[in-house]
Amino acid sequence: MTFELLSVGTELLLGSIVNTNAQYLSRRLSELGFNVYYTTVVGDNPDRLKSALEIAAGRADAVITTGGLGPTVDDLTKETIAEYCGLKCVMDEESKERIINRFHKGNSYMPENNFKQAEMPEGCIILKNENGTAPGAIVEGEDCIFIMLPGPPSEMKPMFDNSVIPYLEKYSDGVIRSKSLLVFGYGESAVDEMLGDLMNNSKNPTVAPYAKTGQVELRITAKADTVQEAKEMLKPMEEKIISILGDKVYGRGIDNSMENVVVQLLRDKKLKVTCAESCTGGMVAEKITSVPGASECFDCGYVTYSNEQKTELLGVSAETLKSVGAVSEETALEMSKGALEKSGADIAVSITGIAGPEGGTDEKPVGLVYISVCTEDFHKAYKFNLTGERGMVRERAALYALDLIRRCALGIIDKEAEYIW
Amino acid sequence: MTFELLSVGTELLLGSIVNTNAQYLSRRLSELGFNVYYTTVVGDNPDRLKSALEIAAGRADAVITTGGLGPTVDDLTKETIAEYCGLKCVMDEESKERIINRFHKGNSYMPENNFKQAEMPEGCIILKNENGTAPGAIVEGEDCIFIMLPGPPSEMKPMFDNSVIPYLEKYSDGVIRSKSLLVFGYGESAVDEMLGDLMNNSKNPTVAPYAKTGQVELRITAKADTVQEAKEMLKPMEEKIISILGDKVYGRGIDNSMENVVVQLLRDKKLKVTCAESCTGGMVAEKITSVPGASECFDCGYVTYSNEQKTELLGVSAETLKSVGAVSEETALEMSKGALEKSGADIAVSITGIAGPEGGTDEKPVGLVYISVCTEDFHKAYKFNLTGERGMVRERAALYALDLIRRCALGIIDKEAEYIW
Repeated sequence: MTFELLSVGTELLLGSIVNTNAQYLSRRLSELGFNVYYTTVVGDNPDRLKSALEIAAGRADAVITTGGLGPTVDDLTKETIAEYCGLKCVMDEESKERIINRFHKGNSYMPENNFKQAEMPEGCIILKNENGTAPGAIVEGEDCIFIMLPGPPSEMKPMFDNSVIPYLEKYSDGVIRSKSLLVFGYGESAVDEMLGDLMNNSKNPTVAPYAKTGQVELRITAKADTVQEAKEMLKPMEEKIISILGDKVYGRGIDNSMENVVVQLLRDKKLKVTCAESCTGGMVAEKITSVPGASECFDCGYVTYSNEQKTELLGVSAETLKSVGAVSEETALEMSKGALEKSGADIAVSITGIAGPEGGTDEKPVGLVYISVCTEDFHKAYKFNLTGERGMVRERAALYALDLIRRCALGIIDKEAEYIW
Repeated sequence: MTFELLSVGTELLLGSIVNTNAQYLSRRLSELGFNVYYTTVVGDNPDRLKSALEIAAGRADAVITTGGLGPTVDDLTKETIAEYCGLKCVMDEESKERIINRFHKGNSYMPENNFKQAEMPEGCIILKNENGTAPGAIVEGEDCIFIMLPGPPSEMKPMFDNSVIPYLEKYSDGVIRSKSLLVFGYGESAVDEMLGDLMNNSKNPTVAPYAKTGQVELRITAKADTVQEAKEMLKPMEEKIISILGDKVYGRGIDNSMENVVVQLLRDKKLKVTCAESCTGGMVAEKITSVPGASECFDCGYVTYSNEQKTELLGVSAETLKSVGAVSEETALEMSKGALEKSGADIAVSITGIAGPEGGTDEKPVGLVYISVCTEDFHKAYKFNLTGERGMVRERAALYALDLIRRCALGIIDKEAEYIW
């Protein structure tokens, strides 16, 4: 069974709001094993809405609309679908009652036009709205099922979950389960090359890459009759991918950011970390502390932007700064050492570099970054030439620093290697 | 001239990501006076992509695609449009060179498949990608113009702003100019109430509010025959709004974030700032240093997450921490004072609070935050009860701290007031 989503609302076409409804429904439908082939946005214009409906009904088994169920003359979704299916709209007394009660409960004045929301296509299945006035509706047309949901996400989501999913279950053949592997240190094209066959030739489960800033998410998706079966299909594929990409796979699960993985790891191993930041200016500390429970593994961080403060706060020698400059291997090494000693942490990382857009020279161009790590028995700095604008350089430098912390905590750093990614 | 947006990517249909590209482009096009009648999302499937292209080209004067320009076999936008227009794709040497250089600069291995990105429809206008590998393209078809942009927003947005807008100007009848006023300290509904008539009854220029995290952007838009004329229409409206909202208007221009305004102001006034952060964990420092040239006004920041480090780094008395706790007016005051003295800055802010989700008590609930400011002749702490989840509490706390710096630098703090927003 294939679906099309049709979001109705001029505010979407003006870019006043972002279409989170389409994302929510897409995700839910894909979890249920249904295919969404198209999503369309159309404004509150009767002709264009009708045309979009015709196209959608012509190529999908079911169309889910969001928006256009409200009380104003602009709200036309129900009327247009009823017309398309040759149905009249008639007052539904129960829905009318609910609308009146809702206004009474809120002690607010009810404009008459609200009753328009209770006029439903004859013979439709009415979907109660627990969080607003406009009811939803399902019309089973000749070749296509139309499911109409209200526009506000706070009304649409519970209506979909509570009323539409139970309705759709009879159409679902089997279940779909996905698992995400998070990759850092290989770009999308490298992952593509390394996994090429696996991605191109696997039909069930499938493997698909999604690029994020400096990272790649690999989604494995299996279709089966039962949840158990689907999960068992994911496992061998997951192991196969990990055997190819090795420790570049840093995490599992779609919401598992690098900082989540790092904080969890440090907490498990009862390790403390600190960071001494120049060009990232607090970003590493900010990322670590964004994770609830970070206080178990993080006591303090140092943002040393000026040379003087590198000396003052971290004990970087003025001699070093004078002879080789702030953006150098030596300075990075002294920063991480100073931070480790001063903080009493188990792992210290330091970052110093040129984020741009100004400040680059031929010898030290924008994007040149040194990242150092210091523990009781390991002390090294790595050199990077990062591309992209200022924000990107900082973001990627922070990710490398976090990955360095992860590798240290796991004990998987090749200590002799000049570069480990 | 009417536009259709066509976003290409299975990850959108699976709901893995939300389609912010469509919102961005819709907004920019509407600002330029162009109509967007439909936006469509289609997956990485050649037949469906072709069908969606045909429909779009049949009903719009111009189609803007995002996504599907990458190196993998899944990336088909360019090829499909070329085929639709009867054009071959040929290697563009300059684009190839740029891709090679980009990989060289990053010192990373370049898989061969990257060259696919440099194969462009013959005769197209090539749009350089300053932030990634895939160039964009404009193909002027017989009945429709196709504008192809990369999928990652960090590549798409600058390409649209820098290359597509200048291209589109020739199609615009009359000019549209907008100006944004950025408001901090009033919510959207408060702004709506204060400006009510101005927003509802103004036709040209119009005034529209857009809510951002903890802020409101007010967009004034004027349509006129010349740029000069449009600009002159904006001015009186801008002054009227500022006369109503006062110093809650902190900046002008859509990209002028609070941190940009603060850094510019500090540089102009030759002031230095420092920050002592507990619950924001480096976010204030990160925001300040995200602005190019921040080194002129920022030497260092302290992230003191544990009590011990508040004492060690900032000299907060152990007695204070024991008697009233880390989240208290007294601790905030001692943190800002310690930071000012230690750093030698002109202004110090400190933030201590409970970001949640754990750690709240009846007496000190999640969202309780103290923010203090210290200068040579002013020293005060403000109490906040911020709502929202952890990230929101931190973000809003950081914004209040930055606004406090702004007010200090401008000398517009009511020093007697308990609360100034």
